[in-house]
Amino acid sequence: MKHHGLSEIARRTAEPPIAWLMKLTLDKPGLISLAAGFTDNPSLPVGETAGLLRELLGSPASGPQALQYGSSAGDPLLRQLTAERLQTLDQTPGGETYSPGRVLMTNGSQQLLYLVAECLCDPGDIVLVEDPTYFVFLGTTQTRGLICRGLRIEPDGIDLVHLETTLEELKRQGLLPRLKLLYLVSYFQNPTGATTSFEKKTRALELLKRYERAAGHPIYLLEDAAYRELGFPGVLAPASALAVPGCSGRVIYAGTYSKPYATGVRVGFGILPEPLYTIALRLKGNHDFGTANLLQQLLARALASGAFARHVKGLRERYAAKAAVMVKAVQREFPEKVEWRPPEGGLYLWARLPRRIRSGIQARLFKSAVEREVLYIPGELCYADDAVRPKPNHEMRLSFGGASETNIREGIHRLGAALHDLMD
Amino acid sequence: MKHHGLSEIARRTAEPPIAWLMKLTLDKPGLISLAAGFTDNPSLPVGETAGLLRELLGSPASGPQALQYGSSAGDPLLRQLTAERLQTLDQTPGGETYSPGRVLMTNGSQQLLYLVAECLCDPGDIVLVEDPTYFVFLGTTQTRGLICRGLRIEPDGIDLVHLETTLEELKRQGLLPRLKLLYLVSYFQNPTGATTSFEKKTRALELLKRYERAAGHPIYLLEDAAYRELGFPGVLAPASALAVPGCSGRVIYAGTYSKPYATGVRVGFGILPEPLYTIALRLKGNHDFGTANLLQQLLARALASGAFARHVKGLRERYAAKAAVMVKAVQREFPEKVEWRPPEGGLYLWARLPRRIRSGIQARLFKSAVEREVLYIPGELCYADDAVRPKPNHEMRLSFGGASETNIREGIHRLGAALHDLMD
Repeated sequence: MKHHGLSEIARRTAEPPIAWLMKLTLDKPGLISLAAGFTDNPSLPVGETAGLLRELLGSPASGPQALQYGSSAGDPLLRQLTAERLQTLDQTPGGETYSPGRVLMTNGSQQLLYLVAECLCDPGDIVLVEDPTYFVFLGTTQTRGLICRGLRIEPDGIDLVHLETTLEELKRQGLLPRLKLLYLVSYFQNPTGATTSFEKKTRALELLKRYERAAGHPIYLLEDAAYRELGFPGVLAPASALAVPGCSGRVIYAGTYSKPYATGVRVGFGILPEPLYTIALRLKGNHDFGTANLLQQLLARALASGAFARHVKGLRERYAAKAAVMVKAVQREFPEKVEWRPPEGGLYLWARLPRRIRSGIQARLFKSAVEREVLYIPGELCYADDAVRPKPNHEMRLSFGGASETNIREGIHRLGAALHDLMD
Repeated sequence: MKHHGLSEIARRTAEPPIAWLMKLTLDKPGLISLAAGFTDNPSLPVGETAGLLRELLGSPASGPQALQYGSSAGDPLLRQLTAERLQTLDQTPGGETYSPGRVLMTNGSQQLLYLVAECLCDPGDIVLVEDPTYFVFLGTTQTRGLICRGLRIEPDGIDLVHLETTLEELKRQGLLPRLKLLYLVSYFQNPTGATTSFEKKTRALELLKRYERAAGHPIYLLEDAAYRELGFPGVLAPASALAVPGCSGRVIYAGTYSKPYATGVRVGFGILPEPLYTIALRLKGNHDFGTANLLQQLLARALASGAFARHVKGLRERYAAKAAVMVKAVQREFPEKVEWRPPEGGLYLWARLPRRIRSGIQARLFKSAVEREVLYIPGELCYADDAVRPKPNHEMRLSFGGASETNIREGIHRLGAALHDLMD
């Protein structure tokens, strides 16, 4: 029977490559995974959460409410605290931009990304992404039938010249009406660790605006700030694009409490301008009419009580220490020709091998790593399908999030041996 | 600018009528809402949940795990317990049909409905629904651009003759290739309270199968069992369509722990045949890569410990009592010409007025009810847009879920007065 009656969405949504990697992990209990973006298990706020839930459910005023339906937009207090926290992080007066009425609570920031794609993009529409970028977003663009164009990335964010030439090229080809947004993972990027400077966000927004007339509609900047809270101690993270004067009508901000608090709690949020906010809210209503109230009330308490801030502070120190362990191990174990930068936040170290050393799933390096029972994310999985350039396949993403310090050392040791085998 | 650059999905997704009703509630604190499908506040399992969470987070083995990412398919134990529970409810050997590998955990059963629509339906595809049906699903069909055809409903489920004539008509019009599924809210239906008999599920599946050749692909039965656990004491709910011999490859079952346990916990699930399971799982990965682990682990404990079963038992008694209060009030307060049946489960009583008495938002009755500070769901909101028949507009859905017994009595008293005013 024809396609089993499946939809176009179903037919174009392939198995995510990461699923295959996950299965590999399950089959080999001795395997050290530097692949998964899991967060650090021992530092999860188990005691704090137990205490907050005890308070929440122990009070007749808040207990039943936490177990009842909320609204599709989310818990009013959590939306307010979220708006306030962002305004504090951005250190701007901001006004309307940081209104709780523009905050939509979601199931992790991932759901917000999906909702935004639904709001803005028809199949065949174009999205600009970083080269490389967050691979789950690439899955979303695949499901939605979108065309991605990759933009070169530098240590302080996308290459603005490349952004401009790409916009110019799309204009020349008459494709600007299909361009809907620029997606940036702006803080301690997944996968490269790069942070986009405020200057670059500002100039990117100016550039996008300049092409809106030819596009015939707004071109939005979707800022994915998933790792924003995970800067290492002493690292100053720039303000978000929401703080760029006069541009808040073009910025969609995706944030999360999942990574900085607990990934098992899975609450994210978006700040959206109209008319997107209203549309995303309606779609959220049809998706699931609201993120679980219990989780939202828990997070509102964590924020209001200071438990969240304390936890984030500790987490930054913890990840800084784990990153330092990885950095030291990489210095010691990797061949000199491997290029990488010490991370300043987030969960990842990005390593670039000499071009002749392939890192993909079919490559000798990957197979050798699996034999040695260590796993990384091949860089090519983080690149969009973009016919304009070949997909680089000589890089790898290494996570220091989930693995223990011992396993980070041992994992890098094994990977180093595999690299030396191939490169020496 | 043209459509603000919005997608087709965005442009066709209208504000849900229920949003307007909700706002009305917020503006009038004295208003008694018999409209919202909220569950009973005093019977929410606050103490049980607090205890289960204390155990869960108190153990070093389970605490950190509950706050960490899970998999997109869901917690393995919860999937297993879900499969087992369904098999017990269906009282069949079942075998592969009730395999945990066919269970997908979702954010309420609502998300499962959305995922199924994405898996199967392109814009312009046809879905058969009950007349009337669950109005949020109608929102989903609107977002997905689907065409609904309404099927008359009887006290034991859809009118099979109407199903057959509709299938025959679609065949004659060459529209069967666009028909993807039949959606039934099969237990204590929202909004009418009707329960589909096992016999009717069996015959509906046979009928659908007979038209598959002309359709060129499978036609699925999507069974929404959201209220299945809420049958009143002594009411025997029939087995699900999963138990129809030889048909499990055509049945998608949507269930939930949200209504029978706690709506603030918001975990639902689906049982899906291949290839739908695999596709829905991939889509779930792109939507949010997994429902919050903390909620799933909580529910797994509630199921394994017997707390869930105890709670459901109490809840059935509680709703039976509240339904009895409503029934008694309706008997006393409503004009005799209003038709209705005593509910046997679920959260709703459906009342049919004489045809000349309109119940819609613009109708005198609705305005009079709002003036008297009582709210119901106008029946017409529960009917799909289907050009083949006029939309009935002389019915109302009354919920005994959220309101207290006092408010049920007072609300029905006010409504009765409004009805007498118009009808006497």
